[in-house]
Amino acid sequence: MSILSGIHPVAEALRNRHPLERLLVAQGAGGPRLQEIIDMARRASVPVRFEPRNALDRLAGTPAHQGVVALGVATKYTDLDAVEQSELVVVLDGVEDPHNLGAIIRTAHAAGAGAVIIPERRAAGVTDVVAKAAAGALEHLPVVRVTNVNRTLEDFKKRGHWIYGLDERGTEDYTKVEYAAPTVLVLGGEGKGLHEQVRNHCDVLVRIPMAGKISSLNVSVAAGVVLFEWRRRRA
Amino acid sequence: MSILSGIHPVAEALRNRHPLERLLVAQGAGGPRLQEIIDMARRASVPVRFEPRNALDRLAGTPAHQGVVALGVATKYTDLDAVEQSELVVVLDGVEDPHNLGAIIRTAHAAGAGAVIIPERRAAGVTDVVAKAAAGALEHLPVVRVTNVNRTLEDFKKRGHWIYGLDERGTEDYTKVEYAAPTVLVLGGEGKGLHEQVRNHCDVLVRIPMAGKISSLNVSVAAGVVLFEWRRRRA
Repeated sequence: MSILSGIHPVAEALRNRHPLERLLVAQGAGGPRLQEIIDMARRASVPVRFEPRNALDRLAGTPAHQGVVALGVATKYTDLDAVEQSELVVVLDGVEDPHNLGAIIRTAHAAGAGAVIIPERRAAGVTDVVAKAAAGALEHLPVVRVTNVNRTLEDFKKRGHWIYGLDERGTEDYTKVEYAAPTVLVLGGEGKGLHEQVRNHCDVLVRIPMAGKISSLNVSVAAGVVLFEWRRRRA
Repeated sequence: MSILSGIHPVAEALRNRHPLERLLVAQGAGGPRLQEIIDMARRASVPVRFEPRNALDRLAGTPAHQGVVALGVATKYTDLDAVEQSELVVVLDGVEDPHNLGAIIRTAHAAGAGAVIIPERRAAGVTDVVAKAAAGALEHLPVVRVTNVNRTLEDFKKRGHWIYGLDERGTEDYTKVEYAAPTVLVLGGEGKGLHEQVRNHCDVLVRIPMAGKISSLNVSVAAGVVLFEWRRRRA
């Protein structure tokens, strides 16, 4: 259970449709910004309770909560079984920045993917920062956490998925390759790309040909470029 | 002049080819990680000076500099005149997040743009955070700061550029529109899109058709999707 406190963080969570279990407002607290939060919570069907200020102090761990504390629902990960029918799945091989993870979840949902798969270790998990960067997409797109990305790719292969890895060393231009369905797109971590074993599990290694003097894009931007090319070709 | 201190921040700045004027190392300091920084600085032609530890304390404003301080060069903005011949220019109408600005500079350079134009007010300027997110692209791509985005768009129009605005309310699919050259692509700020006056200055308003239940992408991801479609069509 995550706990948010203060006018601004709570208002942002509501605006970004972060899943909240309950909103606690200090008895006697008021003002237009607090009223706006209460209205937003009610519109979002988040229960609002008025409680003594010291109950909020205790939950927030500080008296600087401006009269409002929100209790968030812990993220539920989805089981792999539930998403194996997807026409497009995004697998992240070690994305560590929560802003990137959130932006990729948002982008994958907008491109029509059925799931994002992340490893349990050495990678960002779903946190409030991720939920915020995902801008509401977490409520719609299943996120699966797996212990072993290589084994997951083998499973997908056995079920007839085609595995496309995005890698600087890829030989195929992402705009020219045929995207066979169902598709799994694998992206590497920031500044490291795909692990060698993961690379070996890919049917095709694609790259984004670039102008200029730098060799890679931010991983969430690269995800967007390839995912929306996949979407364009499918249309 | 920006000042960075500590093994990790300085190593990152060197790795990201942030423009540095000088590296100061505390006399008597050593170790493999510090040696690696000195080697990187020498390879990047950044002058290395060995100075008394208290000189570093003073510059860093703290004794917690781990024996290394780097002096960075302040960003120089380019004049608009110098970039008006570009075949592709990216104009940002109020992008406020420095990570997004950096990622867009990196992406614009990789897509073949000749410049990124930002407004002086109510928008992120180029800072160390931006330089880091741009991953070296700032050294290659001119950034122009203008007082009035609308006037800048009028200037470009007079010189024969075609202005494409990306907007949720756009009527043209970004994959179907003809990109007339020279092209100016205008992107709005986070969560706000284009200002009305800016929208009125666009020849074409394009949108990214999306699946799912959210209405927009992160602005740096959206920039990547459209800029690389522009690049694909031009190839």
